[in-house]
Amino acid sequence: MLQTISELFELVKVKNPLIHQITNMVTINDCANVTLAIGASPVMAHSPEEVEDVVSHAHALVLNCGTFSEVTFQSMLKAGKIANELGIPIILDPVGVGAITSREKYVKSILESIRIDIIRGNESELDCLAGGIGTSKGVDAIHTGRDHEAIANKVANMFGCIAIVSGEVDVVSNGERTVIIKNGHPYLTKITGTGCMSTALIASFASVTKNLMEASIAGISTMGIAGELAAKCLSDKEGLGTFKVNLFDVITLMDGNMWRRGVDIFEEY
Amino acid sequence: MLQTISELFELVKVKNPLIHQITNMVTINDCANVTLAIGASPVMAHSPEEVEDVVSHAHALVLNCGTFSEVTFQSMLKAGKIANELGIPIILDPVGVGAITSREKYVKSILESIRIDIIRGNESELDCLAGGIGTSKGVDAIHTGRDHEAIANKVANMFGCIAIVSGEVDVVSNGERTVIIKNGHPYLTKITGTGCMSTALIASFASVTKNLMEASIAGISTMGIAGELAAKCLSDKEGLGTFKVNLFDVITLMDGNMWRRGVDIFEEY
Amino acid sequence: MLQTISELFELVKVKNPLIHQITNMVTINDCANVTLAIGASPVMAHSPEEVEDVVSHAHALVLNCGTFSEVTFQSMLKAGKIANELGIPIILDPVGVGAITSREKYVKSILESIRIDIIRGNESELDCLAGGIGTSKGVDAIHTGRDHEAIANKVANMFGCIAIVSGEVDVVSNGERTVIIKNGHPYLTKITGTGCMSTALIASFASVTKNLMEASIAGISTMGIAGELAAKCLSDKEGLGTFKVNLFDVITLMDGNMWRRGVDIFEEY
Repeated sequence: MLQTISELFELVKVKNPLIHQITNMVTINDCANVTLAIGASPVMAHSPEEVEDVVSHAHALVLNCGTFSEVTFQSMLKAGKIANELGIPIILDPVGVGAITSREKYVKSILESIRIDIIRGNESELDCLAGGIGTSKGVDAIHTGRDHEAIANKVANMFGCIAIVSGEVDVVSNGERTVIIKNGHPYLTKITGTGCMSTALIASFASVTKNLMEASIAGISTMGIAGELAAKCLSDKEGLGTFKVNLFDVITLMDGNMWRRGVDIFEEY
Repeated sequence: MLQTISELFELVKVKNPLIHQITNMVTINDCANVTLAIGASPVMAHSPEEVEDVVSHAHALVLNCGTFSEVTFQSMLKAGKIANELGIPIILDPVGVGAITSREKYVKSILESIRIDIIRGNESELDCLAGGIGTSKGVDAIHTGRDHEAIANKVANMFGCIAIVSGEVDVVSNGERTVIIKNGHPYLTKITGTGCMSTALIASFASVTKNLMEASIAGISTMGIAGELAAKCLSDKEGLGTFKVNLFDVITLMDGNMWRRGVDIFEEY
Repeated sequence: MLQTISELFELVKVKNPLIHQITNMVTINDCANVTLAIGASPVMAHSPEEVEDVVSHAHALVLNCGTFSEVTFQSMLKAGKIANELGIPIILDPVGVGAITSREKYVKSILESIRIDIIRGNESELDCLAGGIGTSKGVDAIHTGRDHEAIANKVANMFGCIAIVSGEVDVVSNGERTVIIKNGHPYLTKITGTGCMSTALIASFASVTKNLMEASIAGISTMGIAGELAAKCLSDKEGLGTFKVNLFDVITLMDGNMWRRGVDIFEEY
């Protein structure tokens, strides 16, 4: 598995896939730039009139709920239906679900109307989609990721997709297999958009392989490794400004070898 | 006063308050990141359907008029009324008022409908709210801030709030006391969003203390000090790109001691 | 010509013109910052209610179609008509035309309703406006820019404006004269917004001279030179994060001398 994942980095650069992203207004620039940095091409069209046209030329579709509105919802439904028809993988980032009540019905409606291939969110977002099974919120749960495994597993089975719960460890499940990734750095939670950018990376990989489990692992671990490396070279006079610059630098330079040297992954049985 | 203000930096990091920001599309990413850098948590929801839910969990509310629309205006009114009911401090940034005629009626309507706790803007914005008392626009007025004092004082008394006029010196008034802060650097006017980010910082501090005068001083002076330090370490081959990175670095590292060493403040009697 | 162009850099800084930009949500922050970096003042108002007021105080108007909507279209028409009446130069960036079918009718409608002074886009965008004359898409066309010349020339003649086709070489035509600029770096295609930012730079120069050919050359070549210099000082541990920071640094420092040393330009006869 490690070998085939490591080959995805070159594959994205060679194929330069088009990633259609209907996303939020907070991190839209960062998501476009991270897509370029990994070697794919972003197109950030969200107007209802345009999305059908745009998605039909795309190799993956991101639906990110960060700044949701009725109009964006309609665009997501339209684009999602075309993507389903054309077999284009859809990656859902249900930002704020669970925390913002009114968002829940929209996201659930998307999940009922469209076949989603991959869902990535944090614990509270995916727990909301799972119907609320996260009971132990203590330090142990966070460190072992055991709760996250149950949530990822349930979401994967409920929606027949890959589910990724991001956190101090990242859990990737297809409902049968569960993979834990231990890469990351606390600073990744201190700049906005690292979750959204992870989703854009996952979409970039999902556009060049049929193995969406491997694409998910590649995308989420790339952000974790990049966070580690971006923090490693900070001097004590540097903070989140330099960290963000370093993050984009590392993702620009990331290739299969760098990924294999950096990744800290194991599979649960 | 300096001692209690310096303690606010630690308090924000410990409490990690939620800052709801209904803001503009130009600087929304920077405002979220500066909120994280100082130790608070941003939530940038502006959809009318969502704001009531979001603000009810927040510890401060920012209303920033940078890219105004009828929809944003409705969201601001809704969120503001809930914030008033729940006693959540509201910080208004009347971007462009005075320069853009149609914006004036909206902002004045907000001020009539909602009790605002803190208003921060530049001279022309607050002078517009004050009804136009700024007469001397010469260099002297800018350097001494004397005109700015009159404007801040009038706005504070008109709306029963803290008023902050940003400029070469920053003036903070509660209608009785006036504090002048001399920190800053010309480069702060050469990147977009330093005003908006100041407002986000003020809101972060206002969410953890009842003393909104001190919160205002902490927030506005943090941006001034950060501007000085960010410019200080620029080489002659560096410009506004590096300056902006440095600015976020300094704000990440800012604590009570650093603030006390850097602040240049005096009170008018 | 080189001498008068080189003088524009100082002129922008001295006059500090107001550049009204109705633009997209992906690169709006970068466009505002690049406008500031070159010495002009951005105002990013796009609300239909506000644009007439804003444009009447502006010295140039940018219409950028990057995230298009019916509302934005109405704002562009309104602002454009006032700009025409007042003789304020209008710079159109038809982002995505050609690639996104539905956008074509809007952009063509803008071109029928408003007198545009300068159009800047990539090959496929301007080829769409020209009615599709780009036949040879091979490496040669890209390197010599010969196809781009034909497209630029046709667009310039069709709409009575300056047309700029950006690419590996940039072609600037007023329908009679054609100037080729060879500055640039592949990394400029690897961060989002360098096209949009070029347009903002062109507008900044167009606001201070009647010679729109020279303004166009100044703006587009500034981005090319900045890309070269920003890439030149990258270490092998740095990537697109540092490149973008360097780009803003170089544009901050760019003056007439630096431009003359860097520009690689020739005119076709």
